[in-house]
Amino acid sequence: MKVLILGGDGYLGWPTAMHLSARGHAVAVVDNYLRRRLCQEENVKPLFSVPSLNERASSWEANSGYKVRVYIGDLNEWDFVEEVFRDFTPEGIVHYAEQPAAPYSMLNRRAAGLTLHNNLGVTMNLICAVREFCPDAHIVKIGTMGEYGTPNIDIEEGWIEIEHKGRKDRFLYPRQASSLYHTTKIMDTDLLWLYVRIWGLRVTDLMQGPVYGLFTDESKENEELLPFFNYDEIFGTVLNRFVVQAVANCPLTVYGKGGQTRGYLNIRDTLNCVRLSLESPASEGELRIFNQFTEIFSVNELAEKVQRVGNALGLNVQIQPLENPRKEAEEHYYNPVHSGLLELGLQPNYLTDRVLEQMMQLVIKYKDSIKIDNIFRGVKWS
Amino acid sequence: MKVLILGGDGYLGWPTAMHLSARGHAVAVVDNYLRRRLCQEENVKPLFSVPSLNERASSWEANSGYKVRVYIGDLNEWDFVEEVFRDFTPEGIVHYAEQPAAPYSMLNRRAAGLTLHNNLGVTMNLICAVREFCPDAHIVKIGTMGEYGTPNIDIEEGWIEIEHKGRKDRFLYPRQASSLYHTTKIMDTDLLWLYVRIWGLRVTDLMQGPVYGLFTDESKENEELLPFFNYDEIFGTVLNRFVVQAVANCPLTVYGKGGQTRGYLNIRDTLNCVRLSLESPASEGELRIFNQFTEIFSVNELAEKVQRVGNALGLNVQIQPLENPRKEAEEHYYNPVHSGLLELGLQPNYLTDRVLEQMMQLVIKYKDSIKIDNIFRGVKWS
Repeated sequence: MKVLILGGDGYLGWPTAMHLSARGHAVAVVDNYLRRRLCQEENVKPLFSVPSLNERASSWEANSGYKVRVYIGDLNEWDFVEEVFRDFTPEGIVHYAEQPAAPYSMLNRRAAGLTLHNNLGVTMNLICAVREFCPDAHIVKIGTMGEYGTPNIDIEEGWIEIEHKGRKDRFLYPRQASSLYHTTKIMDTDLLWLYVRIWGLRVTDLMQGPVYGLFTDESKENEELLPFFNYDEIFGTVLNRFVVQAVANCPLTVYGKGGQTRGYLNIRDTLNCVRLSLESPASEGELRIFNQFTEIFSVNELAEKVQRVGNALGLNVQIQPLENPRKEAEEHYYNPVHSGLLELGLQPNYLTDRVLEQMMQLVIKYKDSIKIDNIFRGVKWS
Repeated sequence: MKVLILGGDGYLGWPTAMHLSARGHAVAVVDNYLRRRLCQEENVKPLFSVPSLNERASSWEANSGYKVRVYIGDLNEWDFVEEVFRDFTPEGIVHYAEQPAAPYSMLNRRAAGLTLHNNLGVTMNLICAVREFCPDAHIVKIGTMGEYGTPNIDIEEGWIEIEHKGRKDRFLYPRQASSLYHTTKIMDTDLLWLYVRIWGLRVTDLMQGPVYGLFTDESKENEELLPFFNYDEIFGTVLNRFVVQAVANCPLTVYGKGGQTRGYLNIRDTLNCVRLSLESPASEGELRIFNQFTEIFSVNELAEKVQRVGNALGLNVQIQPLENPRKEAEEHYYNPVHSGLLELGLQPNYLTDRVLEQMMQLVIKYKDSIKIDNIFRGVKWS
């Protein structure tokens, strides 16, 4: 299948490109290096320096024999979108091309505007490009479990039947996020759902939980193919940050009571979920939604796991509760369904002690490049 | 109260400015004449030519003695927003500053992009300006009943308690619109709800039905103060268009089966609803939602009313069903609650035959300026 990956330079984008091309798909990636620019502006660095997309595509081809096409440009500009879609008419599209960090979106007015403008502008252009150049192509959109927030009822997979005053109807599950980033993902879903109904698009919306992990099958033998791995408070996800804090001998920063509970998944499972979705596309006029995670943990549980595994490796891991800089429930009900991707064939990579240990061992190799002042700055929501 | 009206040049903006200033509020209006520019680009004209905002403010002052401040500029540009909010720090803000037409938003990619960018950009800037310059000010946002779509259950006023698998929670009523314009209003609500929770803003979101009417108490004696009245398919609302079609001896264009049912209100009631909301503001950290309409009609019922009243005035009114250019249910359940504004004190102006007759009589005076080719072009949703 010809697959175009929007946002191919990011933490998930490049590993997805390798994973799909290794399984026989014809892959092209698009990126404007926005994440790199924002990291530079905010003075944070990934754990390992990452070659450019063109360099990574060359390394990957040299290693594996698979060719990945690279387009560099801004998907918010229609001229560029048109150029890419005319040149590489995809059958499947993976849309990662968004400003992906909740803390960044809450930094200041400029960051908020960039997040809103970039995320919705790219999604709108994607919708128009599919309609114009490849109306039968299947869009796989990365949403977030954060769209649902933490409701006091079970979270279904995207849809809910509501019975009210003796009548019934089926609705998009009501969504209520707690950052602007997460809210733009709600808006993406609304936009896609509109054009699925109006134009008959095929869309899979993957409500993904926080991802962790350092390497995938394709990068484990070749560290220059590793993902763009942020461990800072702004762009890093919580478990990745905890692992780096453990190795750097910094206390694990738990926000508030630490009862915040989410569904997590290994980066390898992200790749499998995206591939399984592409290989069994949504129907014409269907918005198919999956909840994409494999296990549920509270922040305290993650911190305790990292502490236990870190201490067994001879580290001295401390846990430091901090006043919560975010506005979120610190103790809440959380029971989301997540059967759709398992039914498509997902075989989860669970967060075992062995998995955590392997992550830590790799981070230990890069210990000297950890910038401790990157890890925590206390970006406040208000 | 110091009230700033964003989008003060439009069909509702200018009448609201006069209405509030006549009731003792200190009013300023902001506009960039976007609606005028889009009308020009799409080659449609309002029924009467409308003086500029500055000219209307002068006429109004000469007539009534009340002064309305005028700011001309683009609220998508932060520099301008800052200038306005520093100069006129409002206690209440009425936000009409959006591209307001569903058919326009579905015209083409450029119109879609403009609608998305303008509507969300202005709302985001408004939120940031309130936080920075007047955090206690009350935002009255014009939403639309179209955010709800036409669900098969009763429509509540913004919120719904859902019982699911033995547990309960309260949610924003699930929304699902059938044009991009209506979808941007859903997104506005999501954006406002986020910052109500994060920053404690005070917001009233008015889910308004289609408005009809030609004059208000403040303009009835002075036709140069009349609202910006579109009767074309793109910017005109359905009943206003039917009245003009009746007068122009064109058949009333009913889309599809004509069973599309909505809540309607007289333009005078819009002004009262907005004023009543301003005079009893939402609390800090409250998103208050009212369904803003006074009566429910199907399109067929409206057409039959216009036909009956028109024929009694000696017109020969025909009704012409057309293939529906939109994607919408043509027969559906529709039972929305609308008690909140009545409880605030709204005394509705219902759509009596006398009201329709007065509208027609005024349109008849302008009969020669009706551009028949403006009325219907068949803008298709797909």
